[in-house]
Amino acid sequence: MRNFEHLQSACYEANMQLPALGLVVYTFGNVSVVDRELELFAIKPSGVPYESLRAEDIVVVDFDNNVVSGQMRPSSDTKTHAFLYKHWTHIGGICHTHSTYAVSWAQAQRDIPNFGTTHADHLTPDIPCAPPMSDELIQGDYEYNTGQQILDCFEEKGLSYREVEMVLLGNHGPFTWGKDAAKAVYNSKVLEEIARMAYLTLQINPQAARLKPALIQKHYERKHGKDAYYGQ
Amino acid sequence: MRNFEHLQSACYEANMQLPALGLVVYTFGNVSVVDRELELFAIKPSGVPYESLRAEDIVVVDFDNNVVSGQMRPSSDTKTHAFLYKHWTHIGGICHTHSTYAVSWAQAQRDIPNFGTTHADHLTPDIPCAPPMSDELIQGDYEYNTGQQILDCFEEKGLSYREVEMVLLGNHGPFTWGKDAAKAVYNSKVLEEIARMAYLTLQINPQAARLKPALIQKHYERKHGKDAYYGQ
Amino acid sequence: MRNFEHLQSACYEANMQLPALGLVVYTFGNVSVVDRELELFAIKPSGVPYESLRAEDIVVVDFDNNVVSGQMRPSSDTKTHAFLYKHWTHIGGICHTHSTYAVSWAQAQRDIPNFGTTHADHLTPDIPCAPPMSDELIQGDYEYNTGQQILDCFEEKGLSYREVEMVLLGNHGPFTWGKDAAKAVYNSKVLEEIARMAYLTLQINPQAARLKPALIQKHYERKHGKDAYYGQ
Amino acid sequence: MRNFEHLQSACYEANMQLPALGLVVYTFGNVSVVDRELELFAIKPSGVPYESLRAEDIVVVDFDNNVVSGQMRPSSDTKTHAFLYKHWTHIGGICHTHSTYAVSWAQAQRDIPNFGTTHADHLTPDIPCAPPMSDELIQGDYEYNTGQQILDCFEEKGLSYREVEMVLLGNHGPFTWGKDAAKAVYNSKVLEEIARMAYLTLQINPQAARLKPALIQKHYERKHGKDAYYGQ
Repeated sequence: MRNFEHLQSACYEANMQLPALGLVVYTFGNVSVVDRELELFAIKPSGVPYESLRAEDIVVVDFDNNVVSGQMRPSSDTKTHAFLYKHWTHIGGICHTHSTYAVSWAQAQRDIPNFGTTHADHLTPDIPCAPPMSDELIQGDYEYNTGQQILDCFEEKGLSYREVEMVLLGNHGPFTWGKDAAKAVYNSKVLEEIARMAYLTLQINPQAARLKPALIQKHYERKHGKDAYYGQ
Repeated sequence: MRNFEHLQSACYEANMQLPALGLVVYTFGNVSVVDRELELFAIKPSGVPYESLRAEDIVVVDFDNNVVSGQMRPSSDTKTHAFLYKHWTHIGGICHTHSTYAVSWAQAQRDIPNFGTTHADHLTPDIPCAPPMSDELIQGDYEYNTGQQILDCFEEKGLSYREVEMVLLGNHGPFTWGKDAAKAVYNSKVLEEIARMAYLTLQINPQAARLKPALIQKHYERKHGKDAYYGQ
Repeated sequence: MRNFEHLQSACYEANMQLPALGLVVYTFGNVSVVDRELELFAIKPSGVPYESLRAEDIVVVDFDNNVVSGQMRPSSDTKTHAFLYKHWTHIGGICHTHSTYAVSWAQAQRDIPNFGTTHADHLTPDIPCAPPMSDELIQGDYEYNTGQQILDCFEEKGLSYREVEMVLLGNHGPFTWGKDAAKAVYNSKVLEEIARMAYLTLQINPQAARLKPALIQKHYERKHGKDAYYGQ
Repeated sequence: MRNFEHLQSACYEANMQLPALGLVVYTFGNVSVVDRELELFAIKPSGVPYESLRAEDIVVVDFDNNVVSGQMRPSSDTKTHAFLYKHWTHIGGICHTHSTYAVSWAQAQRDIPNFGTTHADHLTPDIPCAPPMSDELIQGDYEYNTGQQILDCFEEKGLSYREVEMVLLGNHGPFTWGKDAAKAVYNSKVLEEIARMAYLTLQINPQAARLKPALIQKHYERKHGKDAYYGQ
């Protein structure tokens, strides 16, 4: 039997960030991390509370959802992760939570408007909220179709998953991703902060306007553009 | 004198979860745990702050509210617990708190709409808010009648206590229950999170709609249906 | 020189509860405790952050605001405390904070409606908000007049300081009191929780109604009436 | 090479207050501290998370943005700090955060009204929100122009930087300053509290009025006037 300790350990560390960052209670979330060479990913087991989770509980799965290593059943959202890894070849980690403010926007079925530089430091468009899927898709292969729902939303809105690393699923909650699991978790925390500030902004000024395009561009480019000068 | 250490200890542990989960301050809550064979339950003593509560302070009471063991007076809500244990034969623990968001919905006298999958993962209907009881019942055997108020609410709305493990008492606050005390406390925390998200959802979109029935069914069934595949 | 260590220690302990309970940042609050026989009270020194406060810094003052013991200047609110101790002969401790939700109601210049049993467990009327005083009184002996402002508010509304142990000063913040300093601090925390829940209640239902009188009476009496059965 | 340990250490300590006070997550903020004799200031390096920041990482820069000491790239906001130190000769420290409530007012593009004595204890006018700058200025030397944006706002509103030690940048967030770095950080925390209370005040009473001038003057003067009697 192959040894996946390194993958399990990375996945475990990323999962344990979720309660530390205040993004989950009980079992309300999961993080996965992929090995592109092996075409396998490690993911949290289903329904295990964070307090009792151990690195050796992490399950290793292939892109067709077959368990390759591990005694436990993988997250019930595993097919969604597999779908995204298969279709989006540049992502290294995926994170799903039920964090308070992101879920509230998802339940309100509204995109989160780009109201400020905190948002523009991370992405230029509004944070998309995918509409709930049709009854047929829900009653079919639900978690696989959730992956399709995300892809459809990005295609319809003309978004790139390499620039926009987060989405809200209508009436459900957020999925985020990134070059590795740590970045996926970082994006979940950032999304939660942006969602909270955008909510408060609308309470203080219901007519609040989006950030002007020049300022969006400036903040995004200084962090992510070819002449970026943010960071080391 | 009989030894109820095991029952007291389970009750104590469940009670101490309440401040740890941010659900109570001072003495604003109580948890009980029942022994169905003995027809007795253990409950927090009245008015004792969580900081100074000890396992040996836990009081053991029969279904007619007689103290069977313990030096202290049991919770002032004891008759409500006894009533529910007597009428609902499948519950093993009961929890009452004055947690912020659940109380706010109770004070607003509104059922909490099923806005998302976090809610549907736990129950399919809206979380019921029982209307305040009549003046006669308040001035009568108030805590006993509070149990009746809960039963009447479930009957009127056609709810099953085995599927819906939580209720709001109008102008008062939440009661939750479950197969044991830990599940009752879990339900109090989940209720608080759902109440908070539902409040925020309505602030972001006052016209927010309930989750579509297919999605409610899907999420509830994957956790609780006969073909459930959530958890281990 | 007389030894006031016991009084200083009680005052210090009560003051240190304020940051522990999340009611203050920096220097935004003060607690005093009175010795009725000596006609003296101990109070926090002015402008000293809680992190560096020591029991020996606590200042002892008489009812005419003269420092009897201590090297530091007493709280700038000392005259308000002295005024209340002189006029309200049954109180043993006074607490003043700028806690978030209580201040917000004070800034909104609104009484906090009695929306639920959490409120009724502690007092039956709405929590009064005293209107800001006249310019002459502000420009006169401001802190002394603040005491008068509280007394006038209670007289005008027909309230008893022995039943209602809290007040909001319009555009300023809360004062609370009680039989001792610990009770005064308890009342500040309870007020903050009630203020938060009342705010949320109005957000969820702007037409939310006060608790019905029978329920107010029931909850208040079971804790404070002559046949009270709450607590030990 | 000169030794700037003292300056780096003061800067490091002030920066580490930001996560401790709940004002930043990840890398969302920076504090600088100036040495007026040397005409140099120490500032946080760009994009370094607070968890891994060390005192020796702090960069020392002159007023023309040249790095004088340090291996790392200074904060991307360095030119704004330099601009303010050059133009406002009495400030000793500057702090920038993306704290939740201050950012929300900035995104709403509203000045924060002076609603109460917590505000008046620190400044008499509303907290100014500078309008977003023109596209030319954004596309030019953005961070330098941000300094100009702040100066223009103060000139237009007739404010003194020695009395008003805080500003909101429209659609961005707060900058605060003070006689040293600790005071600049203190002002960021105070601003966040005032911003939160002002938001809640408007939710409770959308017609809430500013504090009356006599009360503003009284509270400001007792802390900052020539006959101030607050503090030691």
